[in-house]
Amino acid sequence: MNPEAEAKAPPADEEATSAGPLAFPPVAARGGGAAAMRLIVPLQGIVQGRGGLVLGSLIPCALFYFLQIYLKRNRSSPSPSSSSPPADEGELPGIVRTLSRASLGSARSPAAVSSRAVSIAKSSDSAAYFVGYKKCSEDPYHPLDNPDGVIQLGLAENHLSFDLIEGWFATNSKNSWFDERQGGLNINGLATYQPSDGLMELKMAIAGFMGQVVQGSVSFNPSRIILTAGATSAIEILSFCLGDHGNGFLVPSPYYPGYDRNTKWTAGIEVIPVPCRSTDNFSFSIAALERAYDQAKKRGVKVRAVLFSNPSNPVGNLLQRKLLHDLLDFATEKNIHVIADEVFAGSTYGNEEFVSMAEILNSDDEFDRSRVHIIYSLSKDLSVPGFRTGLIYSFNDQVLSVASKLTRFSSISAPTQRLLISMLTDSDFITRYIKVNRSRLRAMHALFVDGLKQLGIKCVKSGGGFYCWADVSQFMKSYSEKGEFELWKEMLDLAKINATPGTACHCIEPGWFRFCFTTLTEKDVPVIMERFKRIFDSR
Amino acid sequence: MNPEAEAKAPPADEEATSAGPLAFPPVAARGGGAAAMRLIVPLQGIVQGRGGLVLGSLIPCALFYFLQIYLKRNRSSPSPSSSSPPADEGELPGIVRTLSRASLGSARSPAAVSSRAVSIAKSSDSAAYFVGYKKCSEDPYHPLDNPDGVIQLGLAENHLSFDLIEGWFATNSKNSWFDERQGGLNINGLATYQPSDGLMELKMAIAGFMGQVVQGSVSFNPSRIILTAGATSAIEILSFCLGDHGNGFLVPSPYYPGYDRNTKWTAGIEVIPVPCRSTDNFSFSIAALERAYDQAKKRGVKVRAVLFSNPSNPVGNLLQRKLLHDLLDFATEKNIHVIADEVFAGSTYGNEEFVSMAEILNSDDEFDRSRVHIIYSLSKDLSVPGFRTGLIYSFNDQVLSVASKLTRFSSISAPTQRLLISMLTDSDFITRYIKVNRSRLRAMHALFVDGLKQLGIKCVKSGGGFYCWADVSQFMKSYSEKGEFELWKEMLDLAKINATPGTACHCIEPGWFRFCFTTLTEKDVPVIMERFKRIFDSR
Repeated sequence: MNPEAEAKAPPADEEATSAGPLAFPPVAARGGGAAAMRLIVPLQGIVQGRGGLVLGSLIPCALFYFLQIYLKRNRSSPSPSSSSPPADEGELPGIVRTLSRASLGSARSPAAVSSRAVSIAKSSDSAAYFVGYKKCSEDPYHPLDNPDGVIQLGLAENHLSFDLIEGWFATNSKNSWFDERQGGLNINGLATYQPSDGLMELKMAIAGFMGQVVQGSVSFNPSRIILTAGATSAIEILSFCLGDHGNGFLVPSPYYPGYDRNTKWTAGIEVIPVPCRSTDNFSFSIAALERAYDQAKKRGVKVRAVLFSNPSNPVGNLLQRKLLHDLLDFATEKNIHVIADEVFAGSTYGNEEFVSMAEILNSDDEFDRSRVHIIYSLSKDLSVPGFRTGLIYSFNDQVLSVASKLTRFSSISAPTQRLLISMLTDSDFITRYIKVNRSRLRAMHALFVDGLKQLGIKCVKSGGGFYCWADVSQFMKSYSEKGEFELWKEMLDLAKINATPGTACHCIEPGWFRFCFTTLTEKDVPVIMERFKRIFDSR
Repeated sequence: MNPEAEAKAPPADEEATSAGPLAFPPVAARGGGAAAMRLIVPLQGIVQGRGGLVLGSLIPCALFYFLQIYLKRNRSSPSPSSSSPPADEGELPGIVRTLSRASLGSARSPAAVSSRAVSIAKSSDSAAYFVGYKKCSEDPYHPLDNPDGVIQLGLAENHLSFDLIEGWFATNSKNSWFDERQGGLNINGLATYQPSDGLMELKMAIAGFMGQVVQGSVSFNPSRIILTAGATSAIEILSFCLGDHGNGFLVPSPYYPGYDRNTKWTAGIEVIPVPCRSTDNFSFSIAALERAYDQAKKRGVKVRAVLFSNPSNPVGNLLQRKLLHDLLDFATEKNIHVIADEVFAGSTYGNEEFVSMAEILNSDDEFDRSRVHIIYSLSKDLSVPGFRTGLIYSFNDQVLSVASKLTRFSSISAPTQRLLISMLTDSDFITRYIKVNRSRLRAMHALFVDGLKQLGIKCVKSGGGFYCWADVSQFMKSYSEKGEFELWKEMLDLAKINATPGTACHCIEPGWFRFCFTTLTEKDVPVIMERFKRIFDSR
């Protein structure tokens, strides 16, 4: 493995996409699946004895007959390369064993990895957008040192308030590890094993921060918090807890591309996109959820949860109180879970109010709280993604207990936890940080969106997040995914701007882009607009 | 969830056991599985058409007939509680859906978690030894403040050199985050997203430390390192990479109880114990591996790797060079992988030489390196388990690439990585630390084993680790697992000493205990021996 290539890889939970721009696997699979289901569902009934015992025996009998003929024909085929085992290896062990025997003669045959490893390895082969990240890291823009470099608008990272974080660090970080009572270094609190799901002191500090971030609209109970190494693994752990391999989560699209990897790679949960449209401001409706649920059911996929981001990533809009209530009703009716990804809860800038799912639960005793889980993180609202500190906030005791056990694979190191306790309990700093950061976010959003407006590009009205969701379809040569991909490539190659195209977020309308503006300074904005203008004018 | 109970839970990768002392699930399953396989294997052949097309159709036909009768009979049975879905839910979705429909009427039915969550939740219900950890944390021994408290000999944590770590911290830690070139805080290296599999600077520093720890017998290539949040998740990630759900890893027993959880909980890999005996000093043999491999095969379990610890946990013996060579031959012949858990590589104290699997590979070009993977960690050799820093060192490029992707769920936070870079590149400190720690380890081991010897208790001759493996069977009232459990309980309740009984480590001979001595001071040893004497004399 080339260390350089590694350093250039996009950060864990901010890759633009795993699916290629020209492929929409979930949707395609759904289409094909629906047809297959028309055959399988009645067959299933027959096999279960609904068509009478004789018919129920004859049909499987015939199916087995054809299976045997198929297997006989294929038995003489050459053995597959052991470095890429067939996808169904686990399902037909007897047959595979026979095949791999043949290759045992060669003592130097390369050691095979698992089928799932092969599938994870493949999942980036089509990720064209990794190119964008690579270019940004090879040739990064700098106003003085590298004015022709590539500008990164594809990474949801906030640098706007780094000066505040830096200032706190310089003065306070050295005190984080000292225990006043002991008058010395708290070595036992740093070097020894700690509870894998996080220190209670940090849970208390974060619960306080979360309450402050939602401006006191709801208070959070620290004992409902399970700390994880980032929201990425919080979603992975919830996937294990709420679904079994092959189950599905409904996810309104466009959605954050990392969801596919977070639910699927290890936990085997399929994302079932719930397409939203520009005419609805890309907000989802219960009717759309219902349609996607029914289609999944027809395909034989058991839906276990609705997963959504609020404020939405990539759109930036905030969910209305009424919709959140209706969503809970929907979840109750279908007997499924609700996962609210609220990592941008404190990164709002509009006049609209952010409503946490926790607040909805507080306001109504009717709902079964045990189906509600919130994802949170310090990566966005405290601008410290490098600290890998995320969490599950669950109202379900069984989920809390199992998730706590699963954090053995995803613990936060003690020095970082102590640092964060120190930072979050510095209430003057936190109050000032939240206030200043929000006003800078508002200003940068206004500046950037205004710049786009002057180029004739409209953004969806948004209230939170580090990005805007812009309609650039007028500049595409063809109104298609291909047209979007070409425009994305031209932005990267000619304008030297890396952005996230809507296809990467499973948007069904071509021509939408996510532009992140929180790694910029005010002076960068005119440079970007000038570069955009150049390529748009040529089209 | 009760925050207090949480704090009292044992640390993530050092629980005594997950299986109850009176149950040996893998062995039991193996016995039953072999019988079932005698029926299934010929049937499989018939289904594949080996018994002729007619026979191959008639048998499945008959089987389906009986299945239908079974399903018809069970259709009227009451629906299962939705909070504990049946284990086979995923396999018969159509049927389960029908059943769960019935419960949909009640809008307040508790939200069901996944089948796997239920199984993970259960996996500690039988863990009697959690009681020991709880008692240690509720009533911890202190020579002055609490002389009658419970003494912890069940936790493999090293406090012998905490003074050195503490000294380094007090002087140097504040410099870890400052960038000399920039003359200020390295905020971009701390707060922003970093490569999920670790900073190359830390990989280089750890590779250097690993080389120093094995006294230069082999040098490690930083680009073969994937950093993870502890060895626990390194093993989990390798389980995903090397095996598919339902596959197995051969593990010489007695073994570190955490292996069961690390391979099984998320990755679904079964540990197949390879029983070792006191007559062989608990070292495994190729013949024993061969037997376990064949038995697994008969059960239909595909073996994908041998996983072993060297120095062994819990026995403490070191693997001989010849055995490591033979193991590689075995792996090549069976076309499986080798996972060497070398987390105690630098915690040796005997005169015997520790041989890393990497050294074996270096000395012989004949072996296929791509099947060899090493687990390492700073938790043991640098005494900083709270830093959650482990790694996979793999000779397989495909595994490196997939493991790197999977670290998105298990990243180490940047502040801790920077701290470690600073600590590990302080070569004076590291050289001194390794030397002093080793000599203290040697002294404490000698003192503790000598104390046991005076009580008539013999330990296996060992060369590494934080523990000794002692034969206490003479004090059991019955030579059985029950006798061992009673003795363990008496140690805890009467002598107020928590230790790890052999059954927890899947030892097949009753009466062996692991006693960890590295959290003790010299003055604690006579106290412990006095307490032991009291209960042994009464027996």
